[in-house]
Amino acid sequence: MEGAPSRTIDSEDITPAELRLAARNHGLPLELLREPITPIGLHYLLIHYDIPGVDAESFRLEVGGAVERPLSLSLADLRARERVTRPMTFECAGNGRALLSPRPVSQPWLSEAVGTAEWGGTLLGPLLEEAGPLDGAVEALFTGLDSGFEGGVFQHYQRALPLAEADRGLLAYEMNGAPVPPQHGFPLRLVVPGWYGMTNVKWLTRVTLLEEPFQGFQQSVAYRMYGDDGEPGEPLTRMMPRSLMAPPGVPEFMTRERHLEPGPVTLRGRAWSGWGQIAAVTVSTDGGATFAEAELEEPVGDAAWRGWRFHWDAPEGEHVLSSRATDAAGNTQPLEPPWNLKGYANNAVERVRVVVGRRT
Amino acid sequence: MEGAPSRTIDSEDITPAELRLAARNHGLPLELLREPITPIGLHYLLIHYDIPGVDAESFRLEVGGAVERPLSLSLADLRARERVTRPMTFECAGNGRALLSPRPVSQPWLSEAVGTAEWGGTLLGPLLEEAGPLDGAVEALFTGLDSGFEGGVFQHYQRALPLAEADRGLLAYEMNGAPVPPQHGFPLRLVVPGWYGMTNVKWLTRVTLLEEPFQGFQQSVAYRMYGDDGEPGEPLTRMMPRSLMAPPGVPEFMTRERHLEPGPVTLRGRAWSGWGQIAAVTVSTDGGATFAEAELEEPVGDAAWRGWRFHWDAPEGEHVLSSRATDAAGNTQPLEPPWNLKGYANNAVERVRVVVGRRT
Repeated sequence: MEGAPSRTIDSEDITPAELRLAARNHGLPLELLREPITPIGLHYLLIHYDIPGVDAESFRLEVGGAVERPLSLSLADLRARERVTRPMTFECAGNGRALLSPRPVSQPWLSEAVGTAEWGGTLLGPLLEEAGPLDGAVEALFTGLDSGFEGGVFQHYQRALPLAEADRGLLAYEMNGAPVPPQHGFPLRLVVPGWYGMTNVKWLTRVTLLEEPFQGFQQSVAYRMYGDDGEPGEPLTRMMPRSLMAPPGVPEFMTRERHLEPGPVTLRGRAWSGWGQIAAVTVSTDGGATFAEAELEEPVGDAAWRGWRFHWDAPEGEHVLSSRATDAAGNTQPLEPPWNLKGYANNAVERVRVVVGRRT
Repeated sequence: MEGAPSRTIDSEDITPAELRLAARNHGLPLELLREPITPIGLHYLLIHYDIPGVDAESFRLEVGGAVERPLSLSLADLRARERVTRPMTFECAGNGRALLSPRPVSQPWLSEAVGTAEWGGTLLGPLLEEAGPLDGAVEALFTGLDSGFEGGVFQHYQRALPLAEADRGLLAYEMNGAPVPPQHGFPLRLVVPGWYGMTNVKWLTRVTLLEEPFQGFQQSVAYRMYGDDGEPGEPLTRMMPRSLMAPPGVPEFMTRERHLEPGPVTLRGRAWSGWGQIAAVTVSTDGGATFAEAELEEPVGDAAWRGWRFHWDAPEGEHVLSSRATDAAGNTQPLEPPWNLKGYANNAVERVRVVVGRRT
């Protein structure tokens, strides 16, 4: 496995290795898009290695590297600082990967790798200010307590951010008003508004200011958009706009195909973008041939998704429903998936097949 | 899809329909076997249809059918009754399905569809006593608020139990000391010690005493062991014994293959059975050729799993580790999977491949 080349697969069928990932990691059950804040256990989850068991009593966050005054903080120290809570929508950068063709082999997300939580903690900016960044500091490196092999390299999970972005980060010790659960980073997680999920380092144990950009695996090999091995590619940063609907009607168990009765139905969903507020959502009930404007709800927060609704008089027959988001920065979801070797940032519009008929 | 025949697949590769199920439902991340009680969000989850949104204020549990005094109870009524808490281990009847060959097509579980929660609620027995079962009552039918199509039939999820077993059931409104989460049956779930997971009807809204055995889909078609369509087969009831280990070492991200350093290591895991207390666990470090006794911990409860540990001096090289449980009723895990058309109750011993070597 180590050093194995990136692989893509032409078949729609999923390999045993992908299944092992899918059996651990899970998406948001899409009917839960009805909730503005995702309940614990339903938020998507992508865990690179194992969930570490962390003793909260002896836990310390170390802040060091290119700073004047290194800090070592207990959870109590962090809790004694100013507390901020903020709803944030996160999406896995690999969301939509399994819908690409050929399919990049990794966690095989369809479209459900998203969730919104109310994160509570203390802002990183003031804490870095106290540590006193040296003049040459350019990035903050975040290290988690989790470890494993990836791309042939033994590593702790590590990601870096430019200092200006790091200042916007929240050191979260609460999720939905309770301690961050083990699978989401207990006892401490970095959360950064607007960025793809890989940014939000779980089980955060160390913040290291760097005078040179970080070149580790998760920054220079993973989480980059390129077409072939060896290309430098572009790093993933903020979430591209995406909209999903709570699938209408009821499912068939084995296929998850949707069945609904003919007549008026309100389609509902949520849309988000890391580049600006959602400005418009349009909906198609004819397989993407035509789109019409949906009604927007108030956003759940300035870094969280925005609800939408669309009235449809469902005629008998089979239909493909789609929703499409546009953000205030002018980004719109593409109709066809953008392809790259690792399968990141596929924000093509959803295609939800429904069967409209009377129950017999 | 409706009425489609049961299918099995010879390939190890997973179909898109199976992936859609795997992206929603999820297992216990096996490193969490370290915890006696599974934290919220990490317990396995198998949801037939959609998670219903239930208003706790207007919720009623109806008790009727072949009773002298039908009851209608609010959550407050149920909470006012005697409260019982009990740790219980549940396992999905389909656990191990994806390891069968040919593979029955449904939720593609490997071995992780298990969890242990501290369930809190009130016993069903005294409540049925108050309702006064008629002389002819033989079964209690449990109906959930969730609905969908399955096997071509529109249905609410329904399962029945003989009255003597129903009396042992707990009407649970708490899981791990908090309200039952939406995905586990909020606001009320039946939980029955020792039985496979399908017994524990989520979003429970009605208990109906029957004078004839229930013949609905989930009783007479699904959750039965047979070799071919149309055979009556045997109904699934209690959990067969199984043991799993917390995989030692660290994983490789893509393959989940385990890597550990050579030298002494304590292997740990948990074992359970619905037929009696776990009496012994044996462990093999040579691919199942030989087994040696593991040390047993105190059980987490009389209806919950039991921890075990085994000391191993790991030599360099590749090894296959297995653990094997025997219960007090004399049932032992088979070395080879028992096969049936729907892929239920595959409790064959696990095979955990590990690579022992020094990190370079």
